Amino acid sequence: MPVAPHISDFMASSSFIRKMFEEGMQLKQQYGADKVFDFSIGNPDLEPPAKINEMLRELGESHESRLHAYMPNAGYPETRKAMAEKVSGEQGVEIPFTHIVMGCGAAGAMNSVLKAILSPGDEVLVSAPYFVEYGQYVRNHGGTLVTVPAREDFSLDIAAIGAALNGKTAAIIINSPNNPTGKIYSSDEMEQLGKTLEAHRATCGRTVMIISDEPYREITYNGKTVSPIFPWWKDTVVVSSFAKNLSLPGERIGYTAICPDAENSLELAEAVAYTTRILGFVNAPATFQRIVAACWKESVDYSVYEKRREILMEILDAAGIPFLTPEGAFYLFCRVPERKHTTGEAGDDAAFCDHLKKYRILAVPGRGFGKAGWIRLAYCISERSIALSRDAFIQAGSAW
Amino acid sequence: MPVAPHISDFMASSSFIRKMFEEGMQLKQQYGADKVFDFSIGNPDLEPPAKINEMLRELGESHESRLHAYMPNAGYPETRKAMAEKVSGEQGVEIPFTHIVMGCGAAGAMNSVLKAILSPGDEVLVSAPYFVEYGQYVRNHGGTLVTVPAREDFSLDIAAIGAALNGKTAAIIINSPNNPTGKIYSSDEMEQLGKTLEAHRATCGRTVMIISDEPYREITYNGKTVSPIFPWWKDTVVVSSFAKNLSLPGERIGYTAICPDAENSLELAEAVAYTTRILGFVNAPATFQRIVAACWKESVDYSVYEKRREILMEILDAAGIPFLTPEGAFYLFCRVPERKHTTGEAGDDAAFCDHLKKYRILAVPGRGFGKAGWIRLAYCISERSIALSRDAFIQAGSAW
Repeated sequence: MPVAPHISDFMASSSFIRKMFEEGMQLKQQYGADKVFDFSIGNPDLEPPAKINEMLRELGESHESRLHAYMPNAGYPETRKAMAEKVSGEQGVEIPFTHIVMGCGAAGAMNSVLKAILSPGDEVLVSAPYFVEYGQYVRNHGGTLVTVPAREDFSLDIAAIGAALNGKTAAIIINSPNNPTGKIYSSDEMEQLGKTLEAHRATCGRTVMIISDEPYREITYNGKTVSPIFPWWKDTVVVSSFAKNLSLPGERIGYTAICPDAENSLELAEAVAYTTRILGFVNAPATFQRIVAACWKESVDYSVYEKRREILMEILDAAGIPFLTPEGAFYLFCRVPERKHTTGEAGDDAAFCDHLKKYRILAVPGRGFGKAGWIRLAYCISERSIALSRDAFIQAGSAW
Repeated sequence: MPVAPHISDFMASSSFIRKMFEEGMQLKQQYGADKVFDFSIGNPDLEPPAKINEMLRELGESHESRLHAYMPNAGYPETRKAMAEKVSGEQGVEIPFTHIVMGCGAAGAMNSVLKAILSPGDEVLVSAPYFVEYGQYVRNHGGTLVTVPAREDFSLDIAAIGAALNGKTAAIIINSPNNPTGKIYSSDEMEQLGKTLEAHRATCGRTVMIISDEPYREITYNGKTVSPIFPWWKDTVVVSSFAKNLSLPGERIGYTAICPDAENSLELAEAVAYTTRILGFVNAPATFQRIVAACWKESVDYSVYEKRREILMEILDAAGIPFLTPEGAFYLFCRVPERKHTTGEAGDDAAFCDHLKKYRILAVPGRGFGKAGWIRLAYCISERSIALSRDAFIQAGSAW
């Protein structure tokens, strides 16, 4: 009963993030949770807003029938209406509920979208560094992910994106605030991107879709906000979830929102509902559809993440580890420092993560995000744990 | 922003079941729910056991942290242990929790399994009639579904299955009690199937996996039970859910259980956890993982379905519509009767469903299950509605 050879191969080179997450659980059992500084995964430690559990209790007490039954594959109309209101506000474009399809997290939603649009041989562009699972998602549906290196400050390299577009390009994935860099793309970048896609359409005849993966949209610092995309490019689809802003990653609740001014927008919405069905999601989980319809205006206290960011940046400065100041999300992208006491390849991110692990600091090599020479630290862990990691970082930094 | 052409084509020829489900909702708005006899979909109307909502309330009141966080992709260890106990009892083989991967319903679980095992060009066998979504699930992962007609009584045609096996055959899907026929395969059929697969392995060298899709396992009549498969073929994987026995279809909670004596069984379990991740499921929904761990020994009152079956069989007899007596599940598979007052092709199941619709009876054509000339009635609707449908069936039968 063999595993398909290509799946075995993928597994062997599989996500560093999940490996670290699972190694971290082992280390914590061995040394105690206090003694392990686990910056490996974006698994928010902040508890969800109290209203979430209140709604769970209310649903448990309700005598409403068919609470757990099938509903249309796209989701409950009332949930879709709530999401339409949410995304209309974010994008500044009125979205009817017919253009919302509820999904099993942003990952599920993105798979449904890719399945709906990709033909064999199609390409999907992404600016690197990027969330590495995108490669798998695109490959699941017969496409190829094409990476375009970001500029030095991790903003989009619009000229390079323009050069990468060709007749096989079906879509470009935008992720802002970005995982792993914390970068937020500017409204100007979105405008330039729209113009580039328009010029490509004029010459090539093919419309390239923007897939905007926005689970971190609300988590921003210093008053920064995330610009809308619909005004700059109508052929845009937003996929998002409540994994990060409501701390519900395990519940797999998200959505797809399709710009109503896109070509064939309603047909695409129907196709995404259809692919949600045939991929085996069938529908987003019923209970959490009801909960997010009632709770989407809630949020965790993002200032907690902002404070942690400050503490961690101070520690990294003290440890001599250079980094990019994140504008949003809860990731710090750090450059592997110069070696002073160790030998080996300069900027070897995997070696630096192994080095940090000796100090019980868990981080993920940047090569796992298409950017060797860097590492990612997820700071959605307790302030106390971050503060306690100070000595470990300083020792690790000076011994490298 | 076009939909991929092959997806548009699939949608056009898409599931009759969902079409009827959505048409049914419209008819009910038009005529009132009382006046529409909706036998179209397996969406159980029985409320889940009371303990489900009690657990929801308890979780809502609990102060346990990280209730909604990520867990390992395979699921919570305690949930996997509960499922291992469940399937060990059903299969008579001790299954360690390492061989359980929680999934988003049986549909999600089956997609994860197929993704883990199929290489391009592989074939998957199924006995027809069959749940039509299997074709999509297999195609999602580069395989081809090959149908083998069942015997006249809808038991497995073991000789025909043996003849269909070849070097490209990766798996055979078994669904007992069967959707749409309600047939339960005998232990003898399982033994014969195991011997056939063994003979094929001996000559061809390839191990064919049995994927046993068992969401209806507990719903049986007249004291019948569903035989285990692991004793007859070790290279077997069970996929199942709590959609039908606990009436939780909208919550998308299910599992994969891998026979520990299978070749590479642990590697396969790891591959299924991996494909659960990369397909975007990531993990089965957290809250319902906790609920089924506590509630899997509960059930709805299956005698309700048994009573409805009796009522519906009496009605069909009175209406002159021949059928196969179901042994389990909640579907009645009926032969299209001879035409007496209408003209057209004999046994035209789509025409007969259209005819029934005039009497506000919603049924699904058998061609949607790979068996033209028959129709499926799902009797997971109220006894009252079934009883009220009597005149409509008799009028429809005599006017056909």
